[in-house]
Amino acid sequence: MSVRVGILGATGAVGQRFVQLLEDHPTFEIVVLTASPESAGERYRNAAKWRVDTPIPDEVAAMRVRETAVDAIPDVDLLFSSLPSGVAAEIEPELCRAGYVVSSNSSNERMAADVPLTIPEVNADHLDLIDTQREARDWDGALVKNPNCSTITMVPTLAALDEFGLSRVHVSTLQAVSGAGYSGVTSMEILDNVLPHIGGEEEKMETESKKLLGDVTDGELSLHDVEVAASCNRVPSLDGHLENVFAELSEDPDAEEIHEALTEFEGIDLRSAPERPIHVFDDPERPQPRLDRMRGKGMQISAGGLRETPDGVQYNCLAHNTIRGAAGASILNGELLANEGWV
Amino acid sequence: MSVRVGILGATGAVGQRFVQLLEDHPTFEIVVLTASPESAGERYRNAAKWRVDTPIPDEVAAMRVRETAVDAIPDVDLLFSSLPSGVAAEIEPELCRAGYVVSSNSSNERMAADVPLTIPEVNADHLDLIDTQREARDWDGALVKNPNCSTITMVPTLAALDEFGLSRVHVSTLQAVSGAGYSGVTSMEILDNVLPHIGGEEEKMETESKKLLGDVTDGELSLHDVEVAASCNRVPSLDGHLENVFAELSEDPDAEEIHEALTEFEGIDLRSAPERPIHVFDDPERPQPRLDRMRGKGMQISAGGLRETPDGVQYNCLAHNTIRGAAGASILNGELLANEGWV
Amino acid sequence: MSVRVGILGATGAVGQRFVQLLEDHPTFEIVVLTASPESAGERYRNAAKWRVDTPIPDEVAAMRVRETAVDAIPDVDLLFSSLPSGVAAEIEPELCRAGYVVSSNSSNERMAADVPLTIPEVNADHLDLIDTQREARDWDGALVKNPNCSTITMVPTLAALDEFGLSRVHVSTLQAVSGAGYSGVTSMEILDNVLPHIGGEEEKMETESKKLLGDVTDGELSLHDVEVAASCNRVPSLDGHLENVFAELSEDPDAEEIHEALTEFEGIDLRSAPERPIHVFDDPERPQPRLDRMRGKGMQISAGGLRETPDGVQYNCLAHNTIRGAAGASILNGELLANEGWV
Amino acid sequence: MSVRVGILGATGAVGQRFVQLLEDHPTFEIVVLTASPESAGERYRNAAKWRVDTPIPDEVAAMRVRETAVDAIPDVDLLFSSLPSGVAAEIEPELCRAGYVVSSNSSNERMAADVPLTIPEVNADHLDLIDTQREARDWDGALVKNPNCSTITMVPTLAALDEFGLSRVHVSTLQAVSGAGYSGVTSMEILDNVLPHIGGEEEKMETESKKLLGDVTDGELSLHDVEVAASCNRVPSLDGHLENVFAELSEDPDAEEIHEALTEFEGIDLRSAPERPIHVFDDPERPQPRLDRMRGKGMQISAGGLRETPDGVQYNCLAHNTIRGAAGASILNGELLANEGWV
Repeated sequence: MSVRVGILGATGAVGQRFVQLLEDHPTFEIVVLTASPESAGERYRNAAKWRVDTPIPDEVAAMRVRETAVDAIPDVDLLFSSLPSGVAAEIEPELCRAGYVVSSNSSNERMAADVPLTIPEVNADHLDLIDTQREARDWDGALVKNPNCSTITMVPTLAALDEFGLSRVHVSTLQAVSGAGYSGVTSMEILDNVLPHIGGEEEKMETESKKLLGDVTDGELSLHDVEVAASCNRVPSLDGHLENVFAELSEDPDAEEIHEALTEFEGIDLRSAPERPIHVFDDPERPQPRLDRMRGKGMQISAGGLRETPDGVQYNCLAHNTIRGAAGASILNGELLANEGWV
Repeated sequence: MSVRVGILGATGAVGQRFVQLLEDHPTFEIVVLTASPESAGERYRNAAKWRVDTPIPDEVAAMRVRETAVDAIPDVDLLFSSLPSGVAAEIEPELCRAGYVVSSNSSNERMAADVPLTIPEVNADHLDLIDTQREARDWDGALVKNPNCSTITMVPTLAALDEFGLSRVHVSTLQAVSGAGYSGVTSMEILDNVLPHIGGEEEKMETESKKLLGDVTDGELSLHDVEVAASCNRVPSLDGHLENVFAELSEDPDAEEIHEALTEFEGIDLRSAPERPIHVFDDPERPQPRLDRMRGKGMQISAGGLRETPDGVQYNCLAHNTIRGAAGASILNGELLANEGWV
Repeated sequence: MSVRVGILGATGAVGQRFVQLLEDHPTFEIVVLTASPESAGERYRNAAKWRVDTPIPDEVAAMRVRETAVDAIPDVDLLFSSLPSGVAAEIEPELCRAGYVVSSNSSNERMAADVPLTIPEVNADHLDLIDTQREARDWDGALVKNPNCSTITMVPTLAALDEFGLSRVHVSTLQAVSGAGYSGVTSMEILDNVLPHIGGEEEKMETESKKLLGDVTDGELSLHDVEVAASCNRVPSLDGHLENVFAELSEDPDAEEIHEALTEFEGIDLRSAPERPIHVFDDPERPQPRLDRMRGKGMQISAGGLRETPDGVQYNCLAHNTIRGAAGASILNGELLANEGWV
Repeated sequence: MSVRVGILGATGAVGQRFVQLLEDHPTFEIVVLTASPESAGERYRNAAKWRVDTPIPDEVAAMRVRETAVDAIPDVDLLFSSLPSGVAAEIEPELCRAGYVVSSNSSNERMAADVPLTIPEVNADHLDLIDTQREARDWDGALVKNPNCSTITMVPTLAALDEFGLSRVHVSTLQAVSGAGYSGVTSMEILDNVLPHIGGEEEKMETESKKLLGDVTDGELSLHDVEVAASCNRVPSLDGHLENVFAELSEDPDAEEIHEALTEFEGIDLRSAPERPIHVFDDPERPQPRLDRMRGKGMQISAGGLRETPDGVQYNCLAHNTIRGAAGASILNGELLANEGWV
């Protein structure tokens, strides 16, 4: 049974990842690609400066790009969005009002109380907010968000540890340049250097985590009371965010129990989901971005360097930021929406 | 008044920095250079594969290197040591027994209760331990250590904040490759990558901090009760360690008070010391390793990104790891020793 | 029909590539792995510090490594060698005398007049030298070499242009760090830098090219009279050698004829060979190492930037140095040997 | 005797270098800085995002930036220009007509027959073209250009070798990212990669070299008949262009004669000129960009790797591309203009 999908903002870095990841998808079929007005009418192969390391799929290369506008989009079952957040803030609501179901990677509305912000393995049940959303906004469609790439890397590990009473988190990130988009970080900024600040990133990690770990009951969201303090850095790697997490726990599990909680954290039966969401390395030198970002086709999170601390545990975690942290995250949410009958 | 100095392990990366930094020193005069037995007898220009970005000083280039052995070392006032810690553990005690005063960057004996581990601006008074040391070990000389490069970067900022009741620290480091020595990190390990583990580094930061911030009274050391949890990473930068610090404080200073405490942290009147030990940036994008590591000729620590957290403060700090964090640190300790009459 | 193969020097960087590339090989089956005496007896998973970006094949991981010595090697059909050239120079002749057929990536004996130095698409007929070799050396086995990685990248393009009267070549290389082995280039050497010299590399390109393009008639080799002048540089990329070639031609083909000669250069029907040996880009910004090194599973050579010059043509070419330029080259030679009945 | 100077395009990467290099200049005094209209009226410290590794000079930081327009520029003795070439093509002629003497780094008009393109050590006498220019264009001022950074790096070495009958040159460049301006090369383009093409660069090297080495007699320019074929590459280094040169010579000097010709190439007595224009390394591993770009305060050219070839010589040369290759080149031309009485 085929699901007809469109990609909003298909020519950018994340848009290209959508195209790449959907190439062999058994049920999702790309039927429309949009971009800014200047590219409208061009073939995708010309509109997109293709920089992904596998060739453009032939049938997509030949498709003509449309403008990102409600009346330019045909009838499809599902839209993926990797629009700049300013553009997304305008058009996504229009599309939902017009009846489209949108699985979006853009940062607007992520913290709205009636917009599901989901990682399928963590809080699939937050899709219940769609009913709340439709009622409140008088929409026929639906808007579902995935979190920021740096948040996704950490939150599944926090969800796995929450059984031990997660109360406070200090986290430092070492984020790859692709997280800023193709032109986001110049070479003169980052060669022989590190950037200690990524605008808005720390706040995203601090707030999104509370929502993802929160609870939805009777269509109402309550945030988790964990306190997260984040420090975000850009480093000269291409893909893969590495994060150093210090988690304060109210209980006192030993290293083995923590190891098991992470390793046994339950997966979800969706096409793009890895069998196990989290792989734990015993070798303290792993995970490393270049060696481990492609585990589980870029969808598995790696952890390592577990050490007990006086008040909890410290460890490192890693995910591929443009797959698990962006395009792959939206696709996984799309698969969840399809699976639960929203598409 | 000239102080005759020698450099133990003069051909390595830190050894070369000693030579560079002492080039125009007004009182310290290099009279002997040692290296491993294979180099003994060679001229320094041939024994050292010079990779520092200023030319070898002519007079040093022509000196003949001696073997690192007690009987090969002439009468000098002060020895600087950047020996591998295994070698240092054997020869430094012999030298001290023979009457030499050794200011050492090597990691052996840093935590010994009778060995001063000093950063002049932080705990110059710990030199009082030399009397304890001489009595306990029956030495005529003295052994003084500087801390590990990652520790030095952070501890002056912690010392500045201790007035607010420093109780707990979580710190993540982004350390430059030069910290591992010239051949310590291969290009294949670090290009497009980050290494999440540096052997022994986390423990060094956790223990050395407690000693540096501790108290010496009547020749006896007591450790500070701050709990430090560190996570240490290697990144693809050449020089300059950047660190993300989360400090828990028992008092509740506002951002301005913290800013002032850091900025006003008092310097020391020594030739290689910067006027102000800590420079605080208001721009959250600074400090950056490449742009800021050379502040104060590589001896000033930079801080930035101050943000209040629920239980204290978070900020970033940066220092040049082979100057303030290694050769410059030993030289500063040497100047302190000379100033206080131990040399 | 299965060919039982062994890998000499299986734990190094090229050795690991052999293991990776042979994982799904339909006819070559790994039955023995050797390494230096210290590793003998260990399981491969422990003996090799595995750094390739796909997991170690399970059955190989569990194999016990043997010492690289004639009497430690069981009866196999074919040996691949990625030994250091000093070690290879001693043991390869012994193995050939003992009857083994060795397809070697090591640099020793590459220029010997009775040792085939082959790139199957270029000079498969040079295998005729094996008869000469066996007679001259009284061997039952055979020794076949593949050229240096920088030579392989260029020579197929020269072979394609030789119909236009190739007389002189100036070539500059931009070589990836993996060409020097895992520890060959330190990070401190190459970050924010370029190394203008690779010991012996220029001479290899200059002499091996003449042999590869040369002629074997009646078991006797004559070198091609092309004059090659090479300048070799190391750059901070991980894999993929890019080369700028200026070829002087006695005829005067136009750009289109050159394009066609490269594109139509004939392939060979071997399992690891790409359908077309050379892909030509019209976009002058390609080929680029990171984007194009994996074309044809790392076995296709890319070219681009064609420009006519007063006396011939200039262009760029690129190949994956540890696949097409090392392990894959030896495997392809092994497939040729099997195909021609030497194994 | 003070020369009052202005900098056109003072906020960009090269503009900042002008400010840095003029900080302690004994005779040139900065009195005006221009930028695009949006910055007009702002203080320089705010208008320029300062990224040079020394602090902004205080007096310059406080100056108010003016618009780059003829009527906004006060009476000064000399203007330096680092404008984008499109802007320069419009405003530079207007300024010259209005009587200003302009020493420009912009690429427009470099090849015009009546515009001196000068490297003071190579062709100071080309300033004679100013008379031709004034007559032809009816200007009171004058326009003098320095060549492209990649050309400057090589041409002094060619000038030194011309006594041996320079007939043909093949050159490959390994150019640093700063040559493309602060945002010219994104990190995603260049990390773990090399770019084999720099738009227009090859043609610049091929044509500018012929003009620089050419002859001016009776106010008329004739080009040198050397044939240059260039291949230009961008590599992941910050500053310093390294170039591999193959020079065909009609005479047959030996390596020692070539070494001497380069080493003895005569300097010029100007404040910013190095005593010797070219330093020759005997160590084939040098020059390297990071280690050698700052020789002679960034104004000396380094050479190395000399090898005789069948038809001439091959060698490497290196210069700091934003000092000797841009801002420093214009300043040196300015000093020449002042010295010769044109200012």
